[in-house]
Amino acid sequence: MEMLVGIAAGILTSVSMLPQLIKVIKEKDVQTLSPVMIVVLLVGVSLWVVYGIMKSEWPIILSNAFSVLVNATLLTYYLIYRE
Amino acid sequence: MEMLVGIAAGILTSVSMLPQLIKVIKEKDVQTLSPVMIVVLLVGVSLWVVYGIMKSEWPIILSNAFSVLVNATLLTYYLIYRE
Repeated sequence: MEMLVGIAAGILTSVSMLPQLIKVIKEKDVQTLSPVMIVVLLVGVSLWVVYGIMKSEWPIILSNAFSVLVNATLLTYYLIYRE
Repeated sequence: MEMLVGIAAGILTSVSMLPQLIKVIKEKDVQTLSPVMIVVLLVGVSLWVVYGIMKSEWPIILSNAFSVLVNATLLTYYLIYRE
């Protein structure tokens, strides 16, 4: 049961990141992004991946690994397209 | 050790939400908010709180409970200040 709740939570929190990612990729509009906060979030979700590995909890590992990917992509786009 | 990693992760991911919350509260500017995504995220982090309770993991409970508060505030401001 816990696994189901964790997977559902992970899917929803991951999905909620997609609109911003799609908007940035499509429009290359990085003005609204805060690089400092992306880095803070990137370190945070990376630590959640470490936490998930230490606890062997796949819902935490997978959803936060996805978040690492999303935020690494946002940071890359910011560095490429900032004015 | 796991507790420390979880607390650090929770603090960082929570802190990363603050600039947007402060901006919305200060400027009442809700145009950039997506109510659908706030609701998706709200349900997601609420499920993470349930997951944390089921697993008795305080880092997950506290950081996601904070996220519930932030997103509930964002949603409230959106409903009040949307045009």
